[in-house]
Amino acid sequence: MFESAELGHKIDKAAYDAEVPQLRENLLNAQFDLAQKAKFPVILLIGGVDGAGKGETVNLLNAWMDPRHIVAHAMGEQSDEERERPPMWRFWRALPPKGKIGVFFGSWYTAPIVQRVMGKIKASDLDQSIDEINHFERMLTNEGALIIKFWFHLSKDVQRKRLKSLEKDPKTRWRVTDLDWERFKLYDKFRKVSEHALRATSTAEAPWIVIEGADPRYRSLTAGKILIEAMRKRLDHPVQAAPSSVPPLQAPIDRLNVFDKLNMSQKIAKKKFDSELEKYQGRLNLLTRDERFHNMSVIALFEGSDAAGKGGAIRRITSALDARHYRIIPVAAPTEEERAQPYLWRFWRHIPRTGRVTIFDRSWYGRVLVERVEKFCSEADWMRAYGELNDFEEQLVKNNTVLVKFWLTITKEEQLRRFKEREKTGFKRFKITEEDWRNRKKWNEYEHAVCDMVDRTSTEIAPWTLVEANDKNFARIKILKTLCQQIEAAMKKSK
Amino acid sequence: MFESAELGHKIDKAAYDAEVPQLRENLLNAQFDLAQKAKFPVILLIGGVDGAGKGETVNLLNAWMDPRHIVAHAMGEQSDEERERPPMWRFWRALPPKGKIGVFFGSWYTAPIVQRVMGKIKASDLDQSIDEINHFERMLTNEGALIIKFWFHLSKDVQRKRLKSLEKDPKTRWRVTDLDWERFKLYDKFRKVSEHALRATSTAEAPWIVIEGADPRYRSLTAGKILIEAMRKRLDHPVQAAPSSVPPLQAPIDRLNVFDKLNMSQKIAKKKFDSELEKYQGRLNLLTRDERFHNMSVIALFEGSDAAGKGGAIRRITSALDARHYRIIPVAAPTEEERAQPYLWRFWRHIPRTGRVTIFDRSWYGRVLVERVEKFCSEADWMRAYGELNDFEEQLVKNNTVLVKFWLTITKEEQLRRFKEREKTGFKRFKITEEDWRNRKKWNEYEHAVCDMVDRTSTEIAPWTLVEANDKNFARIKILKTLCQQIEAAMKKSK
Repeated sequence: MFESAELGHKIDKAAYDAEVPQLRENLLNAQFDLAQKAKFPVILLIGGVDGAGKGETVNLLNAWMDPRHIVAHAMGEQSDEERERPPMWRFWRALPPKGKIGVFFGSWYTAPIVQRVMGKIKASDLDQSIDEINHFERMLTNEGALIIKFWFHLSKDVQRKRLKSLEKDPKTRWRVTDLDWERFKLYDKFRKVSEHALRATSTAEAPWIVIEGADPRYRSLTAGKILIEAMRKRLDHPVQAAPSSVPPLQAPIDRLNVFDKLNMSQKIAKKKFDSELEKYQGRLNLLTRDERFHNMSVIALFEGSDAAGKGGAIRRITSALDARHYRIIPVAAPTEEERAQPYLWRFWRHIPRTGRVTIFDRSWYGRVLVERVEKFCSEADWMRAYGELNDFEEQLVKNNTVLVKFWLTITKEEQLRRFKEREKTGFKRFKITEEDWRNRKKWNEYEHAVCDMVDRTSTEIAPWTLVEANDKNFARIKILKTLCQQIEAAMKKSK
Repeated sequence: MFESAELGHKIDKAAYDAEVPQLRENLLNAQFDLAQKAKFPVILLIGGVDGAGKGETVNLLNAWMDPRHIVAHAMGEQSDEERERPPMWRFWRALPPKGKIGVFFGSWYTAPIVQRVMGKIKASDLDQSIDEINHFERMLTNEGALIIKFWFHLSKDVQRKRLKSLEKDPKTRWRVTDLDWERFKLYDKFRKVSEHALRATSTAEAPWIVIEGADPRYRSLTAGKILIEAMRKRLDHPVQAAPSSVPPLQAPIDRLNVFDKLNMSQKIAKKKFDSELEKYQGRLNLLTRDERFHNMSVIALFEGSDAAGKGGAIRRITSALDARHYRIIPVAAPTEEERAQPYLWRFWRHIPRTGRVTIFDRSWYGRVLVERVEKFCSEADWMRAYGELNDFEEQLVKNNTVLVKFWLTITKEEQLRRFKEREKTGFKRFKITEEDWRNRKKWNEYEHAVCDMVDRTSTEIAPWTLVEANDKNFARIKILKTLCQQIEAAMKKSK
């Protein structure tokens, strides 16, 4: 990867001065077009060797461009907010919205490469990270992002000379510490590991561009020109989604599905319900006060047919919890800010810290349910979502989140009964709308989408729990009990 | 993945008989359209649990369709031909050309899943295989293939009952061996491993379709209907390549490249050349007769400017070899048969067995050289090729192939001198054509493509050797010496 970046590239001052004004104008124009009419974000990654001009390039781009539409993120040490969430959380929260440029100075590549160089992770761990990065960047480009990846390089010889010349000059001697020479000793290892990582992540959608960093003029002009070309090309030739070539998943030809096997007549009578409720609420409360709970978090998500009783079930959970430690996230149509981001962004922002419980009333599964059925996204989009959701959940569980997924199901008859009751009962009338009746007409399509969802996202790490909810008491106890059991199982494992 | 395939799906005989005639007609029509006008192959993978009807489904599809355009491959034990080449070789040679359907009964999934179930490979090895499979299938779909993946499933309970009922009946008792019960004991492990593999390879382009295998009518009708829908959709809505959203790689702004750093005046005089030639040819000959050579193979590939002297250099190698053990593959425009396959197919077919040497006179790098410069393929195609070529070469090297890549370079002036000499000299005149002069006009574009190629494919496992070839003697000795050294290095490692 580095052959062409060790040649001593140079641009003289006259040539540089002649080119920069036009380049700046073009960059500003592109930025204006991006902000005004573009439907995509620009994600610029800056990586490379120490002293190869990474920081200088970021500063220069900031100086050249309109600072209102470009945001640089220097990703140094993690904050405690960040440490208590999956490693990718800090990058998700920093993603630029459509129309903006986000510069990542230090990125999702930094930790895997540095840890491998230090010998803290194995080669196979690095390859797994590379794989995750490729999934993540493919998701971003599928969501429309333009990703540009710059790697600033210096040959070993040039880096040694640079350190020596800084040391020689009394005015700059202070800039060279023992740590710099320590890191220099790792040069070969760093070069080898990063070459491997760069090559394995140089995809057709987001290839690395390696730039020799020794000469500031060469480096700056090259970076600026590539950035403007990439933006201009994309602005002038919007990407169109290729039609999917696979058939949409079909419902089984005999119409038999997982719901047919549920025993929907299961019930719990009032008296037994009261005692069970007390029992499991108490158990849940104790669990969240257990010492081991400080190192984990809980996400309980609720999906289900309209009027299946999600709200009531959620209240039975929260009444067992300390109000300071849980949050309910009701998921409706995305806000404007959320629509300017990849669809998972609105969920990443609500990922809890350790020691907390977050309850999602509806969730990221909207992508493969309502968005699929109502055609809010393309077939290719929801087809790829199964894998993206599994990747997302894997990150949560890896990070000690107990993820419990409930699908509350009621029969079509029971739904009709509840709809009618809601229309009759004054204080329940707000709970039934035209939309509920419209959705009901698409019962079969939704059911088919739910079955596909269960088949494709009920993983060993985050299985679905189907809840027979014709009887509210039965559903509430099953939910509380499942939640307790899964927290207990995670605690046992963590010991 | 298996939730919906353990429900006891069934279709009664009347419903089945009513549907099959129309299905067969549709399948035959789709097959006809595919053969007549389609520009894509159909790749059908059949996997699943023992006894779930894999073989029966393949037989049935063969019976339903026109056997001239569908080929089934039962991938059992490897042949010795196959064992001596990378594992994927057997699948490449069996890929269906455009217009045909290839059925893989046992596929690239079989070995990784079975080896993991048997405990012969680690979880991380399985994940690496999954990653390679995803790369391979993405390449196939990018090349236009329609991939359909069926997994036939039986629940543990159904499989136990099936074995028991076969044992009970005196007529079928012989079909159940101890081995069947041995394998049944692994059911849970197999289910877990294959569920993981299926989920991680259920991409938007090529998702797995899980089909319950217990009822033959349900299974056959489901498979047939999905196959026809997938083919019909693709035939009626051809996929168009999405325009690439990244900027094409630009030449360095200061025009400095790796060739500027070569010392093109290096020479070897006649006398020294003769002795060096004898020395290295002798060494090469001995190496190929070394016992350790039986377990490795050599691929030497030659790329270079026109008239750089590839042919002469190749002859200096082959004259040191036993004619029974080497082959030269001259690479020109692909044949009709080759054009009907992914572009790497024509190279896979010539991969040598162990103990052999294959010399490619031009190679798979045409994809990122002539095809890029002459626009024979799209930008997205050659951009993704770097990764695909690296993947390909990694498979070769993993399989004990010594892969040596030479780029022969001459200066523009030296090329002009040689072109003119060729025109003057009678027996050399056939070596110079109009095309050579045309290519020469694109010297800069080719040079830029070559530099990108070196940067992006000179990997730690298969580096490029740039050969200064203004002096033929110097070039020939450097090539022979490099070849010897790389074979020796591989032998040392293999010990």
